[in-house]
Parts: sequence; C-alpha cells; structure tokens
Amino acid sequence: MAIHHAGVSGNSSPVKDKRCRKTWQVKPSLMANNTLNPIRAIVDGMKLSPHPDKAMISLSIGDPTVFGNLPTDDAVLQAMKDAINSHQYNGYAPSVGYLKSRQVVANYYSCSEAPLEAEDVILTSGCSQAIDLAISVLCNPGDNILVPRPGFSLYKTLALSFGIEVKFYNLLPEKSWEVDLQHLESQVDDRTSLLIVTNPSNPCGSVFTKEHLQKILTVASRNCLPILADEVYSNMVSPLDSFPSLASLSSDVPIMSCCGLAKRWLVPGWRMGWILIHDRNNIFGSEIRQGLVKLCQRILGPCTIVQGALEGIFNNTPQGFYDDTIHFIKSNAEICFNELSTVPGLKPILPSGAMYLMIGIDIERFPDFQSDVDFTERLVTEQSVFCLPATAFEYPNFFRIVVTVPEQMMLEACGRIREFCQRHYRPGRRDKNDLDQ
Amino acid sequence: MAIHHAGVSGNSSPVKDKRCRKTWQVKPSLMANNTLNPIRAIVDGMKLSPHPDKAMISLSIGDPTVFGNLPTDDAVLQAMKDAINSHQYNGYAPSVGYLKSRQVVANYYSCSEAPLEAEDVILTSGCSQAIDLAISVLCNPGDNILVPRPGFSLYKTLALSFGIEVKFYNLLPEKSWEVDLQHLESQVDDRTSLLIVTNPSNPCGSVFTKEHLQKILTVASRNCLPILADEVYSNMVSPLDSFPSLASLSSDVPIMSCCGLAKRWLVPGWRMGWILIHDRNNIFGSEIRQGLVKLCQRILGPCTIVQGALEGIFNNTPQGFYDDTIHFIKSNAEICFNELSTVPGLKPILPSGAMYLMIGIDIERFPDFQSDVDFTERLVTEQSVFCLPATAFEYPNFFRIVVTVPEQMMLEACGRIREFCQRHYRPGRRDKNDLDQ
Repeated sequence: MAIHHAGVSGNSSPVKDKRCRKTWQVKPSLMANNTLNPIRAIVDGMKLSPHPDKAMISLSIGDPTVFGNLPTDDAVLQAMKDAINSHQYNGYAPSVGYLKSRQVVANYYSCSEAPLEAEDVILTSGCSQAIDLAISVLCNPGDNILVPRPGFSLYKTLALSFGIEVKFYNLLPEKSWEVDLQHLESQVDDRTSLLIVTNPSNPCGSVFTKEHLQKILTVASRNCLPILADEVYSNMVSPLDSFPSLASLSSDVPIMSCCGLAKRWLVPGWRMGWILIHDRNNIFGSEIRQGLVKLCQRILGPCTIVQGALEGIFNNTPQGFYDDTIHFIKSNAEICFNELSTVPGLKPILPSGAMYLMIGIDIERFPDFQSDVDFTERLVTEQSVFCLPATAFEYPNFFRIVVTVPEQMMLEACGRIREFCQRHYRPGRRDKNDLDQ
Repeated sequence: MAIHHAGVSGNSSPVKDKRCRKTWQVKPSLMANNTLNPIRAIVDGMKLSPHPDKAMISLSIGDPTVFGNLPTDDAVLQAMKDAINSHQYNGYAPSVGYLKSRQVVANYYSCSEAPLEAEDVILTSGCSQAIDLAISVLCNPGDNILVPRPGFSLYKTLALSFGIEVKFYNLLPEKSWEVDLQHLESQVDDRTSLLIVTNPSNPCGSVFTKEHLQKILTVASRNCLPILADEVYSNMVSPLDSFPSLASLSSDVPIMSCCGLAKRWLVPGWRMGWILIHDRNNIFGSEIRQGLVKLCQRILGPCTIVQGALEGIFNNTPQGFYDDTIHFIKSNAEICFNELSTVPGLKPILPSGAMYLMIGIDIERFPDFQSDVDFTERLVTEQSVFCLPATAFEYPNFFRIVVTVPEQMMLEACGRIREFCQRHYRPGRRDKNDLDQ
C-alpha cells in the first residue's frame, strides 16, 4: 500500500524532458480573461474630469453607506460586538454556515406559503456569492441563462466566466419595467438551465405585482425552468406589504432566492448573503442541495462573527430603522422623479423599490452626444455629476441614478442635470436627423 | 440605438418551441459534481461510533479554537470592536480590499529580500479563496498543477472542479518530509502551469530549510514554473527565525504567497486571507495582476470589518501571544512524538511547525486492519479517539494528529492509542505475510 517512490532527492539537473518549457510563459487563464465587469469596462473607458468649480456629486455607486446619511442601526453594531465578546464565533463554521444561524435566517423569511427550515438556507459571502453558487450549481458550459434587460451586470460576468451563454429578456419601461413575457418565452431553448428574476430591480427600482410574478411563474413552469430570484432588495419597497416574494407564489417551480444583509441593514461590506432554497415539489432534490454544499467547501462560507450576529441583527433592529430607510429612499426618489420629469429630453420612470431610478434620454434631441456613455461623461465634465450610463446594464439611452444621497445633494444634482440638458437639448433636431439619414 | 423590442406581454401560451423542455430535468453541474472534498468523502464513509465508556477525543480537525485552550488575543478582538465603532467599514471595499488594509499587510510581510507594496497584496475570503484565485488565474482546463503528496486536499478539490489535472510529487518522510526533487522534476510537462509548495506543511508539520527551498526554486526556475506558496502556517515554527519565506529566496521565480489570519491569530472562521504577489522579474506582469482583480470582482472580497481591524491586529497583538501559541504547540508535538515513538507498529515523524504530526502505521503488523482508514475507524470504536487517516492526503498507511488539544487530552489520547496498538500489533506476522504472498 505504501506509495513512497524510489526517487532520490538532489538538485542536479536531470535529462530534461523536451516537453517542458524553456522560457517563461505565464498568461492569465481563460476564466480570468472572461471575467468581465461591464461597469468597470465602461467607466474605466470614460474621461471623468469634473468641472473645477463644482464639487463632484456621484450618483453612480450602489452603496448606501457612501455619504454617511444612512448609517446602520446601533443594534446591528451591538450584535456584532456581542458576537465578538462571546468568544464563540472564531473557529471554522460548517461551510454552509452555522446551523443556528441558518435557522435564524429560515425563521426570518419563513411564511405559511413558503415555509423554510434551517436546511433550506445556505449562508454565503455576500449576495454575490449566493448568485455565483446558484448559477454554478445549475448550469454547465454551453448552457444558457435568461437575464433581464436592463439588468444587474454580475449575472453576465459570472455566466461568461463559466462559459455559460447569456440570453436577455426585455423589461418594458412603459409598463413600469414588467417582463415582456412573450419575449421571455421566445428566448427559452433546450439549453436554458436557469431564469434569473430580479425583484425589486437593480437598476430599475421597479417592483412586480403579485399578478405579474404569477405570470412569470407560469412561463417558468411551462418550460420547466428553475428560477434564481435575486431579492436582495426585498423589503425595500413602499408600501411594504406590496412585496410578495416569488417563492410565496410558486407551487411547483423550484426557486433559489438570493438575499443578504447588504441593503436592508446597510452593511454591504460585511459580505453576508444567503440562498433560500424553495423546492416544494422536490425538483432540486438532494442532488442540488448536495451540489451547493460541495461548492461551499471551496471557500468555507462567510465571516463567522457576522454569522454569530445574525440573530441579534434580526431580533433587535427596531422597525423604525427600516421605516426610516424606506421613507428616505421613497422621498428622494420622488424628488428626483419630479425634478427630472420637467427636464427637456429626459424621461424618468418612477420606481417603487430598491434605491434606483432609471431615466430615458431622448438621444436624438441631444445631437452633441452619440450615446448615454457620451451624455454621462459630459455631465461630469460640465456639471461634476456622475450617473451610470445604462449601457452598463445592456440598455443604451438610459442612465441610472442612485437615490440614497442626501436630499440637498439630490436637489443640487437634479438642478445641474436640468442646466446640462437645457444647454444641449435641440427640440428641432428630429426632422434634421431624419433628413440626414 | 433603442432596443425596446416589440413584444407584448401576456400570459397566453404561445406556440411552443419544440426544443424546450417538457419535463423537469434539474441536475447539478459538472463543476458541482467535480468539487470533491476527499476528507469529507472518507470521513463520511467511516462508521464513527465512539466507545460508550470513553469520552470522545477528536484529533482530526485543523481548527485550533475547538477546545477553547487557545483563544485569540484580546487585542485582536479589540481591533474588531474598534473597526465596528469607527463606522468606517460598513460599505463596499474595492474587491481586492481597502488600499490601506493592503498596505498594512504589505508592511507586515515586506523585507529587504522580498519587498512588498500595497499593490502586491490581494485580500481574500480566507486563505482558501487565496488558493482558489491563484489556481484559477494561472491555470486552464487541461493544464496540470504539481501538488505535494502528502498534501492538503483543497488543491485537488479546486483543481478538479476547474478541469485542471493534479500531478503529485513526493515528500520524503525519512528526510523530514523534504521534497523528492527528482520526482518533482519528473512530473513537469508542457501543460504544467503551477507548482504548489506548502511550507510549513499541513499535514506533515515539517518546515523546509533555506537550502532545501533554494533547491525547489532551482527546479521551478529551470522549468519556468510559477509557484503558489501556501504559507498559512508561516511564523508557526520553532525557533521562529528558522522560517524563510520562499519569496525571500527567489530572484526570478514568480510567487504567489497565500496566507491569512486563521492560524497565527487563531481566528479561522473570520475568513481573512491574502495573496502576496512576488514578481521581481515581471513575469506575472500586469496581466496576471489584472486577472486577479477581475476574479475578485466575483464576490467582492472579505468582510470589511476584519479588513478594518487588520492594522490593530498586526500592531497591537503582543509578542507573548505568538510565543505562547508556538511554545504550546511545540510542547504538545513533543509530548505526542515521545509518547507514540515507543508504541509498537507506529512511526511518528517529529514536526517543526504548523500544528500537525504525521504517524506511520506499519500496517503489515496490524493484520486486523486493511488500511489507515480501517485503523482509525476502529480507534474510534474501541478508544473514542479520532485521527484523520492520511488517505485523505493521498498518503495511505499514515494518520495525522492535530496537536492543539489541551495537554491532558493529548496525553490521554496517546495512552489510548498505545493501548489500541498493543492490542492489535502482531510482531510475528511479517514472515507469515511473506509466506502468504
């Protein structure tokens, strides 16, 4: 049985196998080369030189903590300190998370329509890893996934890095970004292994009605498509009772709901996410669950201190904290919508959740600019306001505004955007453009 | 430019594309199926029924926090609380970590022979993710990596999940687990993209001399092989000044040194690791660095609170804490070695670092057992002592003992192992076996 080979160690040069390299050829892997972040690619390619006389206002970053106006609650911080002081959360946890912490998450989200046990919860390093795991357990290279357009860019980044194809289905701005169901269904083929539904939506800020979610489930059911429900903005809607989770409406379609602490508790850096496995018809079954467990063993789960803090975070955060956050975001979104609704050439679409607003650009009326990327680049140059061009979400001629900035800053930014548009808007250009063509 | 498609939403069933699935066929991906943890596979296959009259002693888990006898230092916990109280570490960090935290790590490890800047440091979700990133940025499916035997199982787990082949090179127990350099070099071919060196070693507890490391570097240099130096047990050696890092000896071979808080600061659950990029001849160059950055964008780095605590952890942990840990481990390793050296049929190999001891089993003298798995399974049944069979490290007929347990428990375990071996050892069996063959 012993496998000690007879080789004798030494550093004399043996006769070289001619198949070995004689020169250094160290290149990044295909996976590294194929891990493309479109937001970085676009933003890094922009010339972002703010106007020297105007303070920069960045409305581009989906991080509610940047401006300091939305601190997390003291109860959340205290739960972390309690976890540290307990000395109980320093060792390795199971790679899917402490059973007790998984139970806490299960209890938090469980409802009669979609009951959850601890074993239905996988704790992850942020919602990003939850999405990574859901895609990587369900899809093989050559498969395709259905992703909303406009949509969060991480799905595509992850899928392409695995050699998984991305097919987009359209959201309809004129219907508050509901899914174009016929278009969705037309995209399904026999290599489609996953449907991703983002609700509430980044970048749209839209929230689907119960009826619309049921229609999406009907399409998924008819085509035997499991769903990744990216619900990281769940509960960040107004009014609160208008948000049904996708799983609460599903009787057959198996769903992995991905969520985390990041947005509702305003601590995105802590990297605590989770997958809720809803599989009432046992379609995922033990195989998919075991697959998730195996994939979790790669990096062994999220920080144990945050795991240990979950119970305190869920139990002790006062309702007023959640209400204040939602009230602030809703108010800011309305300010932004109202301000920009009267700006020539812009068409903001009123959100009802998350922390974003999408604004259409009537690009033909802005002949100075080729695209939304051009438009937003020049908005920085002239007005020191940075918004993300929606090309980053596969949706040209829109831009996205983050509405978590302080109110005064939001008003100031809207004023500058108005000034910028007034300067560049050309009401008569449509005819001229037609003649040009 | 606008891409609003003309589809009209509705939930009527369109004419079905015949290529779509009509039944549920949800199976785990190849990647999930190929993510195999050999330790789990072996342990889960064992019948671990402790003796009812003897308290279980587990010497199997590489987690120094399990028994409570090796708590982390208060300064480490205080640094975490300071980071929480600062309110500065709740938002997203750059996906490779805060620049300031990377600088802190660079300063901690930088030396004149192997200088480091902040840009040479990538913060990761534990040393496991550091290893994952190093493999995934350097290797493509169909490539192979060279891995020590015996060795830590994660390398193989990660490689096989990516379709990367694993080739083993032998360590020599009779030379304190030095690398069999000829065997190492014989394993290199034109698809070899990475050499992994674990020093100090898990599972062996061995520490290579400066001269031996130089010989390994000579082989790597001659074959143009970059190195992943798994140095997560760096500084956990005795005497301390006997540990040169691999990078401090390399003038040309590019090295990613992977390490983390887990072992030296006794907080493995916190999932804080790092890659130190040593590339003085610019062989990795900007391409590999950018590849790492891109791969980090998948899950956006480790918990920001721990990142924020790094400076306090490094600066404020008293030297006595490190010394006490090393002294304790060394003392326990010597106790275990001395106790088991006189046990018939066992051959412990004295470690000089990390927190492990490997023990050879003269399996022919134990006719009751087929293998190290058999041997350790029965050790649980009869003596309630669990040691990991080294088949889990690709090295049959050895087992590994973790030496971080309290001293009394270590003595008790050694006594029980002695009793077990005395019962099953057959001094005269070798001749009989020879005749049998």
